[in-house]
Amino acid sequence: MDTVHMTLEEVRKIALSALLGHGCDEANAGAIADTITRAERDEARSHGLFRLPGYVTSLENGKVNGRARPTVERLSPGVVRVNGDRGFTPLALNMGRAPLAEAAKEQGIAALAIVRTHHFAALWPETSSLAELGLAALAVTSSPPYVAVAGGRTPFFGTNPMSFAWPRKDGPPVVFDQASSAMARGEIQIAARDGNTVPDGVGIDADGEPTNDPARILAGAQLAFGGYKGSSIALMIDLLAGPLIGEVCSFEAGEQDNQDGGAATGGELIIALDPSRFGAGEDAISHGERLFARMLAQDGVRLPADRRYAARARTPEHGIEVPRSLYDTIEELARG
Amino acid sequence: MDTVHMTLEEVRKIALSALLGHGCDEANAGAIADTITRAERDEARSHGLFRLPGYVTSLENGKVNGRARPTVERLSPGVVRVNGDRGFTPLALNMGRAPLAEAAKEQGIAALAIVRTHHFAALWPETSSLAELGLAALAVTSSPPYVAVAGGRTPFFGTNPMSFAWPRKDGPPVVFDQASSAMARGEIQIAARDGNTVPDGVGIDADGEPTNDPARILAGAQLAFGGYKGSSIALMIDLLAGPLIGEVCSFEAGEQDNQDGGAATGGELIIALDPSRFGAGEDAISHGERLFARMLAQDGVRLPADRRYAARARTPEHGIEVPRSLYDTIEELARG
Repeated sequence: MDTVHMTLEEVRKIALSALLGHGCDEANAGAIADTITRAERDEARSHGLFRLPGYVTSLENGKVNGRARPTVERLSPGVVRVNGDRGFTPLALNMGRAPLAEAAKEQGIAALAIVRTHHFAALWPETSSLAELGLAALAVTSSPPYVAVAGGRTPFFGTNPMSFAWPRKDGPPVVFDQASSAMARGEIQIAARDGNTVPDGVGIDADGEPTNDPARILAGAQLAFGGYKGSSIALMIDLLAGPLIGEVCSFEAGEQDNQDGGAATGGELIIALDPSRFGAGEDAISHGERLFARMLAQDGVRLPADRRYAARARTPEHGIEVPRSLYDTIEELARG
Repeated sequence: MDTVHMTLEEVRKIALSALLGHGCDEANAGAIADTITRAERDEARSHGLFRLPGYVTSLENGKVNGRARPTVERLSPGVVRVNGDRGFTPLALNMGRAPLAEAAKEQGIAALAIVRTHHFAALWPETSSLAELGLAALAVTSSPPYVAVAGGRTPFFGTNPMSFAWPRKDGPPVVFDQASSAMARGEIQIAARDGNTVPDGVGIDADGEPTNDPARILAGAQLAFGGYKGSSIALMIDLLAGPLIGEVCSFEAGEQDNQDGGAATGGELIIALDPSRFGAGEDAISHGERLFARMLAQDGVRLPADRRYAARARTPEHGIEVPRSLYDTIEELARG
């Protein structure tokens, strides 16, 4: 594939230019550009520059507020809420992180409800950044409907991801971030584009019949991972990121969206727990290390996020490769 | 199958007699008998009278303390801990429930860490009982190792269940309770006994090769549901029910246990959230109802736990059927 080499500094700069040129102020553009750059740093490409055209489209359409001024409130001793003022999530998240961490350290456990934002990135940055402050963290968010309820045949749940991170003694957190769908929607789209099939269990066609044809799944519905158990998790996420915090469920996000390809509005819930306040004290983190050591003593086992961390060790020095076609698109966006 | 008809009152009475006759005091026996009776009421048979011989064995061996005096502490504003004094979990849970609910209503979110107990029942009673108090609740516990880590070939995680419950406007909570393993261990044991095969993805043999032979899986390892995603969830549960609260990981529970068939020691974490404290106020519960209505408008879709609730409507009047062989066993235990 024809690619363009970029440094991470160039990634951030081009993202910033594109966002500033399409209605974002410095604060919003900076927070989004950081999110994109971190994704490229970790070679999590589907959440990097690949998303920039989508960010820009939703800014141009006025669906998302590029000059959002998120506000932070403490709703109760253990609950912080950020109202994102219809912006993208990164700035809201930056404003809520410290109050959440402070509440968790004070209370032992606390939650951050993020409302009135458009989530268009991965979830691992939010849980990781809390784990870097010494906290365990669980984050969930919903999305427009793509996934059928177990037993159903039409899209109802979003791909509803869940991320969890645990702090380590030395080095970056153990973190996972996974959709409730069996396969990421982007992968199904790529399989359809390339004329490939997808594995059993990924989706059903518009008649509710199992199929390995990605195009028929895109016209039908995705399935949750692990059958009814993944569907239960998707339901839990819909409730926690929706009704609990006064935000939309997946089905409502779909009904309200303008379908411009950018992120629909939606809520996010993050729960942070301070391992030093649960009775194990200092040993909680050492004990986690003993668990990880026993896992890694097994052939074939790695910790979640290890691939991202390997990329992170490489890219600050060596840079990244971006497909020429994507580069041309974002270069044009950056020119205004 | 030859069965014996019993009323729920008879279930409770026979369980109580067996427990009192084998080292339990009134408080512990009553809490366990209630748990067994609720399981039979809901036709959740694998956690009902079927478990009674296991309870008794662990009491007789002195592994579990039948006269446990659980103690409750508030470790921080949002964290309650119950030390179960080496007893079975039901009494510890009864003592921790009200302090947890109170903390959650006061703080918005709170956690209950249960340590030094033996968990031998389902998780849905704990989340359901909190949802009946108007709270959303998430509970996790680990168990001795039966499930391989994704990529591994030996048992490492427990079947590590997760339960979640959400309060309803009228009627009992929406609740699910599911193991991180693709199939319950008991089902695999039954398939092995009856000479049946199990589906793909349930387990691997001792060489790490996929197999549909339940006996080879029991000698090898179970697999997590949904591949690496279920394995990530099992890891999260090991951390939350273990290192976070100063309790054992699955692999440690296995190493420490006397393998008498009763429950190993282990921890449990319950998180309770008060939907009225997250900014949506009264509407949180109504909004959940709108979500459930849209789910149920779909052909083939039901809410988790609906089968249990159908049983619950039947059994208080009509009683239950118990296999004759099991009845004979427990009848003997009840005679002392």
